[in-house]
Amino acid sequence: MNNYYDVAVIGGGIIGCSIAYYLAKEQLSVAVFESGEIGKKTTSAAAGMLGAHSECEDFEIFYPFARSSQLAYLELEQELKEKTGIDIRRTTGGIYKLAFSESEKRQLQSLSSLATVEWKEADDIREREPGISEKIVGAAFIRDDVHVMPEAVCRGFSKAAQIHGAAIHEYTHVFDIQKTGGHYLIKTQAGDFEAKYVVIASGVWSNALFKYLGLEHRMVPVKGECLSVWNEEIKLKHTLFHEHCYVMPRNDGTLVIGATMVENDWSEKPALGGIEQLIMKAKGMLPSIERMKIASFWAGLRPKTFDGKPFIGFHPEQDHVLVAAGHFRNGILLAPSTGQMIRDLILGKQVRKDWVDAFKIDRKNDVFV
Amino acid sequence: MNNYYDVAVIGGGIIGCSIAYYLAKEQLSVAVFESGEIGKKTTSAAAGMLGAHSECEDFEIFYPFARSSQLAYLELEQELKEKTGIDIRRTTGGIYKLAFSESEKRQLQSLSSLATVEWKEADDIREREPGISEKIVGAAFIRDDVHVMPEAVCRGFSKAAQIHGAAIHEYTHVFDIQKTGGHYLIKTQAGDFEAKYVVIASGVWSNALFKYLGLEHRMVPVKGECLSVWNEEIKLKHTLFHEHCYVMPRNDGTLVIGATMVENDWSEKPALGGIEQLIMKAKGMLPSIERMKIASFWAGLRPKTFDGKPFIGFHPEQDHVLVAAGHFRNGILLAPSTGQMIRDLILGKQVRKDWVDAFKIDRKNDVFV
Amino acid sequence: MNNYYDVAVIGGGIIGCSIAYYLAKEQLSVAVFESGEIGKKTTSAAAGMLGAHSECEDFEIFYPFARSSQLAYLELEQELKEKTGIDIRRTTGGIYKLAFSESEKRQLQSLSSLATVEWKEADDIREREPGISEKIVGAAFIRDDVHVMPEAVCRGFSKAAQIHGAAIHEYTHVFDIQKTGGHYLIKTQAGDFEAKYVVIASGVWSNALFKYLGLEHRMVPVKGECLSVWNEEIKLKHTLFHEHCYVMPRNDGTLVIGATMVENDWSEKPALGGIEQLIMKAKGMLPSIERMKIASFWAGLRPKTFDGKPFIGFHPEQDHVLVAAGHFRNGILLAPSTGQMIRDLILGKQVRKDWVDAFKIDRKNDVFV
Amino acid sequence: MNNYYDVAVIGGGIIGCSIAYYLAKEQLSVAVFESGEIGKKTTSAAAGMLGAHSECEDFEIFYPFARSSQLAYLELEQELKEKTGIDIRRTTGGIYKLAFSESEKRQLQSLSSLATVEWKEADDIREREPGISEKIVGAAFIRDDVHVMPEAVCRGFSKAAQIHGAAIHEYTHVFDIQKTGGHYLIKTQAGDFEAKYVVIASGVWSNALFKYLGLEHRMVPVKGECLSVWNEEIKLKHTLFHEHCYVMPRNDGTLVIGATMVENDWSEKPALGGIEQLIMKAKGMLPSIERMKIASFWAGLRPKTFDGKPFIGFHPEQDHVLVAAGHFRNGILLAPSTGQMIRDLILGKQVRKDWVDAFKIDRKNDVFV
Repeated sequence: MNNYYDVAVIGGGIIGCSIAYYLAKEQLSVAVFESGEIGKKTTSAAAGMLGAHSECEDFEIFYPFARSSQLAYLELEQELKEKTGIDIRRTTGGIYKLAFSESEKRQLQSLSSLATVEWKEADDIREREPGISEKIVGAAFIRDDVHVMPEAVCRGFSKAAQIHGAAIHEYTHVFDIQKTGGHYLIKTQAGDFEAKYVVIASGVWSNALFKYLGLEHRMVPVKGECLSVWNEEIKLKHTLFHEHCYVMPRNDGTLVIGATMVENDWSEKPALGGIEQLIMKAKGMLPSIERMKIASFWAGLRPKTFDGKPFIGFHPEQDHVLVAAGHFRNGILLAPSTGQMIRDLILGKQVRKDWVDAFKIDRKNDVFV
Repeated sequence: MNNYYDVAVIGGGIIGCSIAYYLAKEQLSVAVFESGEIGKKTTSAAAGMLGAHSECEDFEIFYPFARSSQLAYLELEQELKEKTGIDIRRTTGGIYKLAFSESEKRQLQSLSSLATVEWKEADDIREREPGISEKIVGAAFIRDDVHVMPEAVCRGFSKAAQIHGAAIHEYTHVFDIQKTGGHYLIKTQAGDFEAKYVVIASGVWSNALFKYLGLEHRMVPVKGECLSVWNEEIKLKHTLFHEHCYVMPRNDGTLVIGATMVENDWSEKPALGGIEQLIMKAKGMLPSIERMKIASFWAGLRPKTFDGKPFIGFHPEQDHVLVAAGHFRNGILLAPSTGQMIRDLILGKQVRKDWVDAFKIDRKNDVFV
Repeated sequence: MNNYYDVAVIGGGIIGCSIAYYLAKEQLSVAVFESGEIGKKTTSAAAGMLGAHSECEDFEIFYPFARSSQLAYLELEQELKEKTGIDIRRTTGGIYKLAFSESEKRQLQSLSSLATVEWKEADDIREREPGISEKIVGAAFIRDDVHVMPEAVCRGFSKAAQIHGAAIHEYTHVFDIQKTGGHYLIKTQAGDFEAKYVVIASGVWSNALFKYLGLEHRMVPVKGECLSVWNEEIKLKHTLFHEHCYVMPRNDGTLVIGATMVENDWSEKPALGGIEQLIMKAKGMLPSIERMKIASFWAGLRPKTFDGKPFIGFHPEQDHVLVAAGHFRNGILLAPSTGQMIRDLILGKQVRKDWVDAFKIDRKNDVFV
Repeated sequence: MNNYYDVAVIGGGIIGCSIAYYLAKEQLSVAVFESGEIGKKTTSAAAGMLGAHSECEDFEIFYPFARSSQLAYLELEQELKEKTGIDIRRTTGGIYKLAFSESEKRQLQSLSSLATVEWKEADDIREREPGISEKIVGAAFIRDDVHVMPEAVCRGFSKAAQIHGAAIHEYTHVFDIQKTGGHYLIKTQAGDFEAKYVVIASGVWSNALFKYLGLEHRMVPVKGECLSVWNEEIKLKHTLFHEHCYVMPRNDGTLVIGATMVENDWSEKPALGGIEQLIMKAKGMLPSIERMKIASFWAGLRPKTFDGKPFIGFHPEQDHVLVAAGHFRNGILLAPSTGQMIRDLILGKQVRKDWVDAFKIDRKNDVFV
């Protein structure tokens, strides 16, 4: 077994695997260290919406970063299928971000002013989606906010990275990282490894690694509970979205209903109260969902930073240590851009300065400090 | 393969397997024909309460029959463990049938007058079960209404029957039954069989067999949806029961929440609306259940006759044809008594006349005809 | 609920749902009666190979029928996605039908002479698929024998049929069919229905329906056991095929290993001995599969007629009764052609005479009668 | 949330939960820190044999320790049922340790000389267990080597501990332990905790914690793969055991087949090659198992120390730090004795000196050092 790598990525979720893929493509020797299995934690719990618009509240910095990532998925779909045989299952259809009142309609105005977003009146929507609630006053329609199957994307990145020479160490928990000479020593349960660069990409579980590397920052978990139902009758083509909740038609015939927001809960199983909330929310958008048969339920932990934006960039003090974590509700959407940005930082290529500033770890924390 | 049996039992749920067991013990040659797997339909969906008292509304006929069955479980537990190694997992604890109002309290009076039932005041209950709702005014406590694991009972009956020589034909759908000479021809997808006696024990799916045998009766399915949660903290020792719903502590650490009543729905999967109802009901009895983690969900079809009582007895016109179906909410409870009664009818032993009359198929139907 | 239909299709597997789809598209009123859930029996157990060439032993009649069905999948993929949102997950790659000896190589000659098939030498194959066994002497490469996800196709047909107005009755067991006046009475557990045409499409379970309709034919089940593994490292792009067994790369990152041939076994669960056989076979083709992690296992029943070819056509005596069953190892492949042929027979359109003769129920049975 | 405890137990498997239970019973304030869920790793993968005799190769020290633990289960069964409602599902029957040759028979002599072990000739065994291989020459019968359901024991310990006041922190990964004043600081992803005593009970994952606490010892994982089948016909009352493999009848009607020994493999999923081995081994003992239907498969990691004996005792240098790990194939068997021994060490009670010496961490390592 090779024990020395150019880059050690700690964390085998969609972010870590994206980074490994983009680096391995550039001929760097890369290893991913994952304490369980690839893509089985937060990644597999995500619905997979590429909500560059629907999740956006900042059109200056976040939007271009997210939009670039969304567009990257177009070629990724083909690229990963050719390299690995894995289909990331991108589904067209787009999102209706629903307004149930005039005030909600007004709130959607700024979004609707984008060229890629279109305001739809209630009648228009009900004609296309007859099952939708009669109480809506309209919706912002975002054609490009489609979705993918997160675990498939992650497996695609991981396998493609391996085909480019990367090593994926599953079931390999990292319990310490030490600087030693010009390298970093990665101490794992399966033995010690060395690397020139270390990238922390362990989602909310990065906190422990931050500690080993002298970073004072912490993320909190925001648990999201989900369930899915079999939709055998209704032709729902678009994701319905309202107040952070959604009803999303997957291309296997199910609808995914998500997701609650339970701050500071580390458990990865849905509670009864969360399931009840989701059912009520979903009925509000799509009344006939009540008669559909439940297929499955699950939960995952979103990593939230002090300002809700991810940490992507160099450790402020430690050379050759980078962080890519804290993507909150947008890990799937931002995985390609994050992988590319980390690649560029390591290779010394140019990266947009406003992105570097917005996502750097030691950015100003007006709120919490 | 033997193709001739003394008795052919159609249906491999808990009723059919109980009948096979009691007959095989008497040296009769018995075969069970089950279109799928033993105990996987209504039986496996049942919670397994032996509610001789809690489910009772008729103390003259139903109660003695049910009570005798409940008591039979005491020796069955030991008998099946010795013969087959299978543990039916009888759990002590009993039931609190809750009253949330003075009027509900009054309704429980007739029950509370039984020697085996005891009225408990709210304070007394809350002391023993601190998690219970503060809104109760008291409960009827029924020590003997314990529960078992229905699928284990069914497997125990089936395996013990086999050890006594019975044949269990799984995946063997019966598509016709014909009288031929002194015997019955059982036509199945796996070939034809003959038997002297035929017992119809296919729950709500008996309707088709009734048709082949010239019986005009029909049962309707009453779907029951259930879910279970992990109870890791609360020491709930008793089943809580209110308005046909219950929260039942299994001896594996879960709580079972059941069950809805959806008449005339043949689907065996829970709908979202049913799950929502159950959560609301369970919270009403045990508020902290809201924080518990969901473990599983399922549904099953209870077979309901015109008057809610089972059909147990001879076909009114066809010699040597018997029926044992329509046990509605009480199939697990009544399985031993039903098996014994069918055995006695076939062997020509004496059976209580009021039971024969109450459960015979051609009893008077005041309500529907 | 509507109780009268132009066509009643009995059986909700991929054959029945294909028929319903092609008929509903022509504005006929259609109902499917399925005793369980759509696509959950033989359909869901199939690997989904569209082996028009690899499964072919008759190039005069079977091949053109199969090939036409294979080609129909090209447009179906798009059609079903647009109508229902469901992706049938067609995967390119094709099949290597392996030869491990000169004698096997010779047996593949007639196949290799087809324009769509290409002989590949061992070195050539090992270059493309480095993991393949060193013992092969070559393989017939069939580019067009790709695969789909059978349950997705079936759900796609079913949902598209519904969107065109068809009724899908799940959990609705048919227990008798009677001719009554100019119509057929379909007796089900959920009530009686009438239809002008009846199509029997219940796979091996059609035997019972044959009986009700006076057909003397019988099919036998040939159980196929399968398992799947996670392929996280090897870039296997083609299905490997040898002696009825295959290792097939699905586009979710798994490899499917199938399938045993257990004649006259009605059980739908894999036996330990079958699993052992599959592992040995798979190791023979792809040695490194031994280290891969098992993902899942299952079994299904292929319906086999006396000569191995399907029954597709009119009942020889009963007007307006058709049969579409007995597709043995090729149900997924032949579903589109079968649906189209049944549609054409009902609509009175022209159908190739050699197909009608080859697949008619009362064809000559040289072997068995 | 309380942040200070008398004892912090790191690891929520059966060892950690046993320790927590015995300490909480003595009124100490105890917390368990488990990075995932209670009892879901090595514990849930174990078959649950209490093989005090069958696993024994050292009758001086290991045997009395193991035997005392085995006997402790007798009262534990009742104790945990009363306190928590959980049934640990102890199953009687005992083990046949099979000999297939005269040489194996001789190897079993020393075992057979124990008062609790009885030699059985082949004829005698085949009379009781007719399904057993005809190739055996006899077996050592060990009546007391019964089995329990490991996850149920672990849940029972955990819940009983909570009822006595212990805190169980699931999903709480410990990433560092530091000595601070007279206490230990337990740094977790969910925040910092303090404790007077720290007990390391994380099985093979203890290695990382050893590092934090300055212990140079390491354990290696020995992966064990298992599967289970449905035994619907054969009355197998005893566990069959040969060359570290076993066929064990659980009281739910399944047989568990285990377990392989894959050293230094950290993956927790069974590989295809391991499954194949198990099937061959099981057929060697019980030929008809080949026809049984597969129910499930899984794998777990046994923690192995340099000499195969557990580490139970104080840290050689750090005050108030204890270790209880490395139980290899005997974690379930030894859980009660280990819990009691750790309790006694913390409370300063007397512990058998030969046990202290045999299990102390800094014992002489003749083999490896």
